[in-house]
Amino acid sequence: MAEVGGSPGGGVTRLALTEADVRGRRLVESWLAEIGCEITHDAIGNTFAELPGTEPRLAPVLLGSHLDTVAEAGRFDGCLGVLGAVEVLRAVAAGPRPPRTLAAAVFTDEEGARFGRDLLGSSVACGLLDPAQAYGLADADGSTVGTELRTHGLPGTAPVLADRPPHAYLETHIEQGPVLLRAGLPVAAVAGVVGTSWTRIALAGAAAHAGATPMELRRDPGLAMAALRLRLHELAGERPGLTCAVGEMRTHPGLVNVVPGTAGLSVDLRAAEEAVLAEAEEAVRPLAEEAAATYGCAVTGCERTSRTAPVAFHPATVERVADRIGARGIPVRRLWSGAGHDAQLLAGICPTAMVFVRGQRDGVSHSPREWSLPEDCALGVQLMAEVAAELVTQ
Amino acid sequence: MAEVGGSPGGGVTRLALTEADVRGRRLVESWLAEIGCEITHDAIGNTFAELPGTEPRLAPVLLGSHLDTVAEAGRFDGCLGVLGAVEVLRAVAAGPRPPRTLAAAVFTDEEGARFGRDLLGSSVACGLLDPAQAYGLADADGSTVGTELRTHGLPGTAPVLADRPPHAYLETHIEQGPVLLRAGLPVAAVAGVVGTSWTRIALAGAAAHAGATPMELRRDPGLAMAALRLRLHELAGERPGLTCAVGEMRTHPGLVNVVPGTAGLSVDLRAAEEAVLAEAEEAVRPLAEEAAATYGCAVTGCERTSRTAPVAFHPATVERVADRIGARGIPVRRLWSGAGHDAQLLAGICPTAMVFVRGQRDGVSHSPREWSLPEDCALGVQLMAEVAAELVTQ
Repeated sequence: MAEVGGSPGGGVTRLALTEADVRGRRLVESWLAEIGCEITHDAIGNTFAELPGTEPRLAPVLLGSHLDTVAEAGRFDGCLGVLGAVEVLRAVAAGPRPPRTLAAAVFTDEEGARFGRDLLGSSVACGLLDPAQAYGLADADGSTVGTELRTHGLPGTAPVLADRPPHAYLETHIEQGPVLLRAGLPVAAVAGVVGTSWTRIALAGAAAHAGATPMELRRDPGLAMAALRLRLHELAGERPGLTCAVGEMRTHPGLVNVVPGTAGLSVDLRAAEEAVLAEAEEAVRPLAEEAAATYGCAVTGCERTSRTAPVAFHPATVERVADRIGARGIPVRRLWSGAGHDAQLLAGICPTAMVFVRGQRDGVSHSPREWSLPEDCALGVQLMAEVAAELVTQ
Repeated sequence: MAEVGGSPGGGVTRLALTEADVRGRRLVESWLAEIGCEITHDAIGNTFAELPGTEPRLAPVLLGSHLDTVAEAGRFDGCLGVLGAVEVLRAVAAGPRPPRTLAAAVFTDEEGARFGRDLLGSSVACGLLDPAQAYGLADADGSTVGTELRTHGLPGTAPVLADRPPHAYLETHIEQGPVLLRAGLPVAAVAGVVGTSWTRIALAGAAAHAGATPMELRRDPGLAMAALRLRLHELAGERPGLTCAVGEMRTHPGLVNVVPGTAGLSVDLRAAEEAVLAEAEEAVRPLAEEAAATYGCAVTGCERTSRTAPVAFHPATVERVADRIGARGIPVRRLWSGAGHDAQLLAGICPTAMVFVRGQRDGVSHSPREWSLPEDCALGVQLMAEVAAELVTQ
């Protein structure tokens, strides 16, 4: 799969609904068809492949992930869950059919890198986004989701998943972080996905000539930004379970001999507990006001640009994953995912769990350097297969 | 003069050696010729106008400044000193000639906004830059100083000033800062021009996913930059006479959900005392190293990008200005200029002093909002005239 959209430098680019993305999709569909699956698509082009069980009235067990990538991505993000699902279906197809249908899903445009909305396919599948609204999303060149879907013959007539909820959903994914590598663990059960709150803060002072303006007459929003940055770091230190990142810090006009007139920064707060996240959110503006006032500046903007609530996965299904890890003698780690996944939306319509696989190189992701050991990948998929094997018989 | 290169919004643009700049120059030269001055140019096109004294062997007293501007500038920066000199020569021409020649200079390209080197004309005049080297400087479109000078017929055969040093040089200029406005004073004597040191600092940590990377595993150069910013502020607070500005602060890649991988900031240090400036410069790198180490980061760059030594003007001449201010019953303020002026180079070849005129609107400059009261401008020029009148008789 890494050859589809692969670049000479080892990176992979399969932006959603581009020719490379669709070529990858058709390749996976051909493998699923070989196994004997029936392939269908829903209105947003999500692929579903079913290996019918002996009791068709029972809801299926669904395994899946995505194949689209960001630009110059690695080989594992999303892809591992899809290829893992193919292998589980292949193994089950070779034996006697279980009572429940086992199904695989490839969700359209998880990354959001091209059309600006992540979890696009799973949002439609879970009834959270109207397909017609999704069709209208345009990329930087003005091409829309609707046009691209039709060009590639992807939209189908399968009902959205929300109207036929699976018995359970399982997803194997790389961790995309350094925790398992540092802990020396190959896999983990994922307890849920943290809630995320993004805020954009604008500070204003007074631009001034660095030579002609005495220190005591300056109103420097860069200083206020620095003070706020350190207070936000303390905020996270004071609240267990809270993380805080400030990815963007910038002064304007940004010239060596001009005291800045304005400064802007972004705040990314995450927590597994809604109360922790909400309390931290409330603290941000007062901290900004305090830092601004200290240096004679003002908070001219404090805008919430994105907010998701924490999603806890289905405890009993998470414990199935944990039990299978423990059964192999591997210390059981239950991790909260800091990154978003299709599974966080599926959790709203059916019992859901995920398996995390250790990343090498500090867990770097969205980079050609993204890497996981083949044996770790195999173990993660094996665990998913074992849990799926339990679920399809119940 | 504000009509030459003026824009409908009230701004003035006479970038050096453009048609507007040369048109302004020729207009001033026509006024000087009307008064009866002999006009000459040196190799870099600096204009000199002389009102010969009765004892031609005595070195002349020179008054001057520049007419070129940055883009969308105000009406006063440079222009005040040139038009002031014209008025002083006009007044002297109407009376009996003094022993010394009184001269006016218009220096080419003080701002450096077009060809990237400020104080260009005065650098050549003071023997600090070879004209042939200046000719080679090109603007963004590839036009060179040499070509533009020849196109406009500006280069002349007058020797550089350094080979015929004036008896004294006087310049009236707007303050370009808020000090006089806040102090309620219309004018000040300028004691000198502060030394300036610019440093560019680069910090490196490890870019990481804001969701997937626990706080304790981050190495965030944005945090290090914030800590360094506050320490630099303290540095200036601890050292009387030192100013410190950080005009540019920026994180990379600057995305809301990515812990920055690198951060960069600029440091502008200024002081009237060389020892204070040099000591502060020495402190910057250790402070950067300390801030970086605190957050697991490294200082990957600490480059001195510009350095000028403080220039003290000629004390006796400064006191002449101060005495004239005091004689009018105005409290005498001796200011160090934080901005650069042609006078700081002239100070290397002859006794030099400046008069600062109060700016309105917090002393904003390099902006169409730049403004000084007509009575303040007149007072500044009057003081320069009085000092010049003393000097031409000695």
